[in-house]
Amino acid sequence: PGWELAEDAIVKTVRFADFREAMAFVNRVAEVAEELNHHPDITIRWNKVTLTQSTHVAGGLTEYDFRLARRINEL
Amino acid sequence: PGWELAEDAIVKTVRFADFREAMAFVNRVAEVAEELNHHPDITIRWNKVTLTQSTHVAGGLTEYDFRLARRINEL
Repeated sequence: PGWELAEDAIVKTVRFADFREAMAFVNRVAEVAEELNHHPDITIRWNKVTLTQSTHVAGGLTEYDFRLARRINEL
Repeated sequence: PGWELAEDAIVKTVRFADFREAMAFVNRVAEVAEELNHHPDITIRWNKVTLTQSTHVAGGLTEYDFRLARRINEL
């Protein structure tokens, strides 16, 4: 939940209480990304984190995108 | 060095060997940002980190922007 299909990416924005909590989330995302060797673009705007998983390289969503999205949903 | 003046922001992009090193830099930036209570937008694209310090809220660059930029240059 929370993922939206953009033109050539899936995007999820999560809002936290403050920057510190946003960074804690980003570090959890980073661990999962390293584990799956599949790295979304991550943007941090104070308490808001936007994850963008581009799909244009593979020509569409792949199993890896879904796996990453699922793991991030569990964080 | 490395900061560029955009339309209403100063922007710096730094490239690292890999995602892990990029994240280590982001965590150092986060510490400085918390310390100065002045948080740039941070975008991580695998090994590339872009810091965007918006200036439109204050109507231009302030002392805080320069202080943050200087501290980040030292990281």
